[in-house]
Amino acid sequence: MLFGTGMRQGAQEIVAVVVSLDGKKPKQPSLDRLTALVQDDMALVNQLIVDKMRSPVALIPQLAGHLIAAGGKRLRPMLTLAAAQLCGYGGSRHLALAACVEFIHTATLLHDDVVDESDLRRGQESANAVWGNQPSVLVGDFLFSRAFQLMVADGSLQVLKILSNASAVIAEGEVLQLTTANDPQTSEEAYLEVIRSKTATLFAAASQIGAVVAERPRTEAEALESYGMNLGIAFQLIDDVLDYSARQADLGKAIGDDFKEGKVTLPVVLAWRRGDQKDRSFWTRTIGELEQEDGDLLHAIELMHEHRTLADTVERARHYGAIARDALGIFPESDIEQAMLEVVDFCIDRAY
Amino acid sequence: MLFGTGMRQGAQEIVAVVVSLDGKKPKQPSLDRLTALVQDDMALVNQLIVDKMRSPVALIPQLAGHLIAAGGKRLRPMLTLAAAQLCGYGGSRHLALAACVEFIHTATLLHDDVVDESDLRRGQESANAVWGNQPSVLVGDFLFSRAFQLMVADGSLQVLKILSNASAVIAEGEVLQLTTANDPQTSEEAYLEVIRSKTATLFAAASQIGAVVAERPRTEAEALESYGMNLGIAFQLIDDVLDYSARQADLGKAIGDDFKEGKVTLPVVLAWRRGDQKDRSFWTRTIGELEQEDGDLLHAIELMHEHRTLADTVERARHYGAIARDALGIFPESDIEQAMLEVVDFCIDRAY
Repeated sequence: MLFGTGMRQGAQEIVAVVVSLDGKKPKQPSLDRLTALVQDDMALVNQLIVDKMRSPVALIPQLAGHLIAAGGKRLRPMLTLAAAQLCGYGGSRHLALAACVEFIHTATLLHDDVVDESDLRRGQESANAVWGNQPSVLVGDFLFSRAFQLMVADGSLQVLKILSNASAVIAEGEVLQLTTANDPQTSEEAYLEVIRSKTATLFAAASQIGAVVAERPRTEAEALESYGMNLGIAFQLIDDVLDYSARQADLGKAIGDDFKEGKVTLPVVLAWRRGDQKDRSFWTRTIGELEQEDGDLLHAIELMHEHRTLADTVERARHYGAIARDALGIFPESDIEQAMLEVVDFCIDRAY
Repeated sequence: MLFGTGMRQGAQEIVAVVVSLDGKKPKQPSLDRLTALVQDDMALVNQLIVDKMRSPVALIPQLAGHLIAAGGKRLRPMLTLAAAQLCGYGGSRHLALAACVEFIHTATLLHDDVVDESDLRRGQESANAVWGNQPSVLVGDFLFSRAFQLMVADGSLQVLKILSNASAVIAEGEVLQLTTANDPQTSEEAYLEVIRSKTATLFAAASQIGAVVAERPRTEAEALESYGMNLGIAFQLIDDVLDYSARQADLGKAIGDDFKEGKVTLPVVLAWRRGDQKDRSFWTRTIGELEQEDGDLLHAIELMHEHRTLADTVERARHYGAIARDALGIFPESDIEQAMLEVVDFCIDRAY
């Protein structure tokens, strides 16, 4: 089996997720199998991303490159490539559309990080911290427009419909999130609605597009949409767990960002519901009023362990993961199907 | 002749630009004739705008409504309606597309107003000042996505291409503007490139779409594109003059906003070029370094009068206005053509 290795694409180095396996099957589920199966396509997508970011206005590739070159897992475009492969697609339309998906995602990240004066005081670090809000917003707009140009060049109204709907839902979800922010009494349903819109919808669209370019029947497009949607929900739930997790701290990543911002995620929603009056006062002060002291983050994590809210958020993620896995049941068994199933396990198991 | 009057559209009051003429032809060119000719269509467009802004997330119609209800001239969607009429279009596709154009414009305004900490200190007033940066950015994204949904529903790839290209050019122009900001040595060409991208491109797209929905030959689409582009340039040039003009002050509007922000517009570009060393030090301090004192705005205006840079910016605008007028020359004479010619004169003559 071939695994992704660091490869040079034009001026930009793209490092795939690599784990040395010494020929043995990994015990931990990983993205390696998927990465290997789509790596040729992904190299072309990466090249397209670099090409389409070009602009005579130098700040655009500079700023967008800051985020895009930072790499990340490129999970979303990989889903488009994987889904196209699963559907036996032999053309090349999926490449530009995978780039679209990454552009929309990057634009969203840039706009997500826009800060208000009060946030700056709390010491935000992001593209916006480097270049300021205005360039980040405008470069986000550029990437978003560029994504639409790529879709228009592809020429499928069906794809355009899927991705323009997704974009509207994402924006709606982001606004919804603002209005539920800092309210620890947010219901599980309201929280789910937020992550479904702001995260899972793009996973769903990215996956569904694979079936659309392959011109597969609607049942397959719907199965892939469901796979992406449920995978996306599971992914976000685990992300929210990781923000309070020792595992994340072990990986050298910051924890407690959500807490500091007063972001209400499922571990908090459940901790509020399961807590007593004293606990609730704590959540109201720290999350609701953003009055935080040293030791508060630690106490928050203790409360989450006491009420098993991190473990149960992982359980909730497993539920959505199971639905995602079953959604793929209508496809015949194949390497790519196995790899897509493993992605689900990877997304959940990274909590440990 | 029938003129637009205040009309109620759903919950929102839309007040058209109304001037009582007592049956006499106005000496000053105005938008009245155009407003009257497209008023039935415009009422439908206004209704569509209200309908399509709806969202279960209340903040969206609230914030977008703040800008959209504020009214403005709605010049851009009017151009789409006018161009469709000029091309003898009898259908209804132009209505949704005019709404798209207004949504893109509004999204741009929301994103334009995004401020950085330093700007807040200078006391910005905008939607962002009321709701903060984050909601403005996200609601802008929503409107932008909604515009694309409307275009996709219209189903014309040609229209999608025109408007997605326009959006990318606008974003590019906005970023370019940031990079030329605060540089009084900006060339006239660089300045023109900025206003062509950030303002005139949407005027051009809005006008061109009228010919596209009417399925008119390419020459007509190109003529309307040229009309919109040159009108847009003239419009922006005059806007930039008005920011230093007594006429604007008479109308009760603030002057000097561009100066306070260190925005480099043609009156400044020319004043730098025509000024002596002392003048240039003044521009470097006030525009370049944003170190401004009481009396600086007045001195800036004096320098502009001394070097005739306001008058000559109006002359430049006349040049583009003349091109816009000539572009319409291929169309047979009609009421709507006359009204569109008058728009050019109106845009320029509002400088006096």
